Amino acid sequence: MVKVGIIGGTGYTGSELIRILSRHPEATITVITSRAEAGKPVASLFPSLRGHTDLIFSDPADGAALRACDVVMSATPNGVAMTHARELIAAGVRLIDIAADFRIRDLSIWEHWYGMTHACPELVAEAVYGLPEVNRQAITQARLVANPGCYPTAVQLGFLPLVEQGLVDLSQLTASAVSGASGAGRSPHVPFLFTEVAESVRAYNVSGHRHRPEIAQGLARMAGEPVDLVFVPHLVPMIRGIHATLIARLKDPSVDVQAIYEARFQDEPFVDVLPAGGHPETRTVRGTNLCRIGVHKLKGTDKVVVLSAIDNLTKGASGQAVQNLNLMYGFDETLGLADIALFP
Amino acid sequence: MVKVGIIGGTGYTGSELIRILSRHPEATITVITSRAEAGKPVASLFPSLRGHTDLIFSDPADGAALRACDVVMSATPNGVAMTHARELIAAGVRLIDIAADFRIRDLSIWEHWYGMTHACPELVAEAVYGLPEVNRQAITQARLVANPGCYPTAVQLGFLPLVEQGLVDLSQLTASAVSGASGAGRSPHVPFLFTEVAESVRAYNVSGHRHRPEIAQGLARMAGEPVDLVFVPHLVPMIRGIHATLIARLKDPSVDVQAIYEARFQDEPFVDVLPAGGHPETRTVRGTNLCRIGVHKLKGTDKVVVLSAIDNLTKGASGQAVQNLNLMYGFDETLGLADIALFP
Amino acid sequence: MVKVGIIGGTGYTGSELIRILSRHPEATITVITSRAEAGKPVASLFPSLRGHTDLIFSDPADGAALRACDVVMSATPNGVAMTHARELIAAGVRLIDIAADFRIRDLSIWEHWYGMTHACPELVAEAVYGLPEVNRQAITQARLVANPGCYPTAVQLGFLPLVEQGLVDLSQLTASAVSGASGAGRSPHVPFLFTEVAESVRAYNVSGHRHRPEIAQGLARMAGEPVDLVFVPHLVPMIRGIHATLIARLKDPSVDVQAIYEARFQDEPFVDVLPAGGHPETRTVRGTNLCRIGVHKLKGTDKVVVLSAIDNLTKGASGQAVQNLNLMYGFDETLGLADIALFP
Amino acid sequence: MVKVGIIGGTGYTGSELIRILSRHPEATITVITSRAEAGKPVASLFPSLRGHTDLIFSDPADGAALRACDVVMSATPNGVAMTHARELIAAGVRLIDIAADFRIRDLSIWEHWYGMTHACPELVAEAVYGLPEVNRQAITQARLVANPGCYPTAVQLGFLPLVEQGLVDLSQLTASAVSGASGAGRSPHVPFLFTEVAESVRAYNVSGHRHRPEIAQGLARMAGEPVDLVFVPHLVPMIRGIHATLIARLKDPSVDVQAIYEARFQDEPFVDVLPAGGHPETRTVRGTNLCRIGVHKLKGTDKVVVLSAIDNLTKGASGQAVQNLNLMYGFDETLGLADIALFP
Repeated sequence: MVKVGIIGGTGYTGSELIRILSRHPEATITVITSRAEAGKPVASLFPSLRGHTDLIFSDPADGAALRACDVVMSATPNGVAMTHARELIAAGVRLIDIAADFRIRDLSIWEHWYGMTHACPELVAEAVYGLPEVNRQAITQARLVANPGCYPTAVQLGFLPLVEQGLVDLSQLTASAVSGASGAGRSPHVPFLFTEVAESVRAYNVSGHRHRPEIAQGLARMAGEPVDLVFVPHLVPMIRGIHATLIARLKDPSVDVQAIYEARFQDEPFVDVLPAGGHPETRTVRGTNLCRIGVHKLKGTDKVVVLSAIDNLTKGASGQAVQNLNLMYGFDETLGLADIALFP
Repeated sequence: MVKVGIIGGTGYTGSELIRILSRHPEATITVITSRAEAGKPVASLFPSLRGHTDLIFSDPADGAALRACDVVMSATPNGVAMTHARELIAAGVRLIDIAADFRIRDLSIWEHWYGMTHACPELVAEAVYGLPEVNRQAITQARLVANPGCYPTAVQLGFLPLVEQGLVDLSQLTASAVSGASGAGRSPHVPFLFTEVAESVRAYNVSGHRHRPEIAQGLARMAGEPVDLVFVPHLVPMIRGIHATLIARLKDPSVDVQAIYEARFQDEPFVDVLPAGGHPETRTVRGTNLCRIGVHKLKGTDKVVVLSAIDNLTKGASGQAVQNLNLMYGFDETLGLADIALFP
Repeated sequence: MVKVGIIGGTGYTGSELIRILSRHPEATITVITSRAEAGKPVASLFPSLRGHTDLIFSDPADGAALRACDVVMSATPNGVAMTHARELIAAGVRLIDIAADFRIRDLSIWEHWYGMTHACPELVAEAVYGLPEVNRQAITQARLVANPGCYPTAVQLGFLPLVEQGLVDLSQLTASAVSGASGAGRSPHVPFLFTEVAESVRAYNVSGHRHRPEIAQGLARMAGEPVDLVFVPHLVPMIRGIHATLIARLKDPSVDVQAIYEARFQDEPFVDVLPAGGHPETRTVRGTNLCRIGVHKLKGTDKVVVLSAIDNLTKGASGQAVQNLNLMYGFDETLGLADIALFP
Repeated sequence: MVKVGIIGGTGYTGSELIRILSRHPEATITVITSRAEAGKPVASLFPSLRGHTDLIFSDPADGAALRACDVVMSATPNGVAMTHARELIAAGVRLIDIAADFRIRDLSIWEHWYGMTHACPELVAEAVYGLPEVNRQAITQARLVANPGCYPTAVQLGFLPLVEQGLVDLSQLTASAVSGASGAGRSPHVPFLFTEVAESVRAYNVSGHRHRPEIAQGLARMAGEPVDLVFVPHLVPMIRGIHATLIARLKDPSVDVQAIYEARFQDEPFVDVLPAGGHPETRTVRGTNLCRIGVHKLKGTDKVVVLSAIDNLTKGASGQAVQNLNLMYGFDETLGLADIALFP
């Protein structure tokens, strides 16, 4: 059994990790920390876990328990994992950061968007970006995995075949995406009250969102050259889910885009390309690690529209982290991730 | 492997059965029927099942496939299972009816509330009411199980210790319950459109609801005498979940009701009595087979309030049907039913 | 034009007051205070008011502006209005408190439930409880009106004819009520995030809620004797609305309850008794000052179920406050309150 | 008083018309038809209208009542208004069609997208497209107004200044829009059940939606030349509201787009350009006739993102129809349309 530590288990990505790992046949949570809740049973905070776990939150100040793990997953706000990374890596513990500390190579970009000085820049270069559909081989060997953001997962997977294979005009990429409110986390802020989110839609950070540079970096790696991307995020009244609507110009409108997507993802356990003409619904991936994709070439034009749907907390965060863990330890990639979405 | 047939797999209880049984280690669905969808892949109707099942809907007119099953589960509207029961039982197939055909012993009451003549009255007397917490032993031997309704499950489990142990005034029982919209099924009716359900609450059938006689029959069996129950159902804007608020008068207000509940349910795998003062949330049982219960004795009065929460499609329908199947075949009662509710 | 001041205009009852009074033909808001937002345009906080008001939040420390009003409405949290009351009343300004400071006559009960010492007990006795259907005459003359709570409005109006006319057993009153999340106000607390409220139902404060003594006091006044009431509040996933399900035992089950309700409320502009058998939906009163009521006598029993629906922010708070203002100044009681609920 | 007839008053645009016109000081509904509900009081179908209207649905076969009106508004499904138009116009009655029968000039395009043969093609050329911000003068004189679609209203108003003033590349226009479920009308279809819409997002008709040719026609008129538009509609879990996210390439990235929008719309009573950097929320226009717009020029690029929010049933249908009526009869354009959106 792989011994897993979780730093910061009181938010939504933390509770999602516990839900998944509680039933993982080859991994076990040995320690879970929370400064605020140290000493309390995990199930007292998350009643859905009553009967499924006996874990007690422990104080993150006690580093020994974390150093005794095989792998630590950090489910904290941005800026915390980087303060633990050096010590854990030095102790031979592998680290998967579900937050953003190690996602962006260019430190000046990172520091601009995250408003902090990086605490261990030397590990940024080593970190492997944990998008298995792009980086599978490197993940298996990684000491430090930077788990991708939620929007970046949906957008990169949706654009992947087009960009990787050089099929589209890289100066004209557009991503309009909507997210459920769990993407904002569990902190109490007025704009995320039920009364403020229900029965409304709003775009936000249109002039600049942290996930844009992460996406642009990923697409540029696939393409081997920089890309120009318009990214517009929106909040919609649902709990979980991201739906990304991607628009690009095909260099050659005669290519069979559907066939290209099916071929590219045919061996991917967690990417499901719908039959031609399909429209993925976020509810069909809720609570699962799947990304469902629909591809629409617009007749009589050079435009292609790709629809990409994930659960922001699963494939967009904790599920993908477990997928990475499975790769790092040579397990079947789908271990612990076989849930079927509730319907309805 | 137990071979399971499903009659009428296109509604919400049908898809919930498929979701659960797809991952059940000791049961396998060998046939699933639908008059309207015969010939179509199940996953084309339920995209959440893509990749999890290769089943094709077959025509219910072809009875041989059903007769070749070990057990058939009927997930049809009321009035269909009774037309199949005689033939299946005669062929040695066990039957679990998730609808209401065999729930009520008194045929005249059944015929009044369901507006039909019963097609096989001789089997009504034999049918075992499939509430394991009350009838576990009988279920293990049953040829025909009448799976309880959703409200009846929540209300009977909530009242069980009080009524069984004669602690309350049976002429003053009150149940005010709310249900998510999936309780109304998947038929297209205007009152269940998103636009008609969202942002509103309404009671319905206050002057008489079909589940009242079912609940009254169950409580009377527990008590050994008739009960008088006010039952008020409501529709609230959520997909899944029933929350029942039960009020009763204690004969002796000094009894330790919390202790009585904990003792009564301590060995029940699917009933979770919350610590004293707890308020169960329906989301903590969503997609699970659990009934969570909170008990509140009102200080200075002789009243007790019991709160009972289930998922109407799982413990209130298909999950309980699988629990019954597990009992009927001697499996661990929790097989296939270990899901943890998504949070949030 | 009546000059109205609003204390604490940044919450939901405050913004609802502004919405209503902005179009009131005989009243005008001359000052609106907020400690935190002083100096900011009201419309910058509430974009729905852009173009409808030029008001600027002012500092509540500047009492002169408030003293120059004809009437002040306090839309603050509990415990604030009582610190302004003495000074305002002394200055000849009438006061309508939408919070709870003056609702309960018995100071020890108030101090127990609200956890504070009352700052001006001498005015509690003078305050008129602002439920026009019970206290219309007194309200017209009042210097100080205690605007009722949201649950208390729905429950008292629903029970009114039964209790006032001595038709029911006062020791067996039950009220199970559900509320939308706006009842919890606009403060940022985790349990009221969208992610925590959507797709779930929970009861709360079952062992004791502040509104129970307020309701009990009101019913006792109507009855002329104490009443025994079980009150169970619930949170449901909607923004606005309260639905109360009231159950009582008729002393004489042969009375025509429907006729009694219709007669009692026939001249009430804001109480609408549905035709026999009706089930009020909260959405039909959303944004309006109406209370819609459905009456169900249960055949073959001595029980009556009354369903009562209001908008918690309008008839349950700010709309009723404007109704009281209309009465206090001799205006038509419906002035400014003629909105029709959006459908759907 | 202008005498208004409504054809087909049982859907959501019909009930919204009644809500608005019930309080219009210069117009009165004299007849409202419904084949299915003839003889029933309107308020029995729409409980929110109880007490606000005494109208009875009449049989549309009785044409005399409609011919006696000054103006008829058709709130029927597509294809009905065109069967009434000739007779009404001949009788001197003005007609506002809220459906799509007269929106598209090119009959072959109309017949392709709407799947019918047009019943009175000679009136298509005469019909005035009822978008007041573009066609105000022509509307005042019109005998026949084609009220715009919901998406077309949001998208055209959002693009208006850019396209009208030739500021953007017309071959690269993108509109990604989301709609609440009321846009699908009140017909009972499974995909619009609460259980199918809640907690999910999906795009639809990505390969071709009826509103694309309507939008393209409108933008082409503004531009004086054809445009190339990608239009992607989505369904989100809310009742009312459309949010359109529009992306275009500026020919000259140095223009002050914010100032251009403010200038273009400064005299428009129903278009509200937010301060620079603003993100309109659909809830702030719910139940109102407003279109709120936010303009974002993306720094360092030639892209501009415009956000446009309306209520699909008000500015996107019945409210705009009343705005057109006001213009046609010389009333103040805002008459009957002064509602402030509920908050929250």
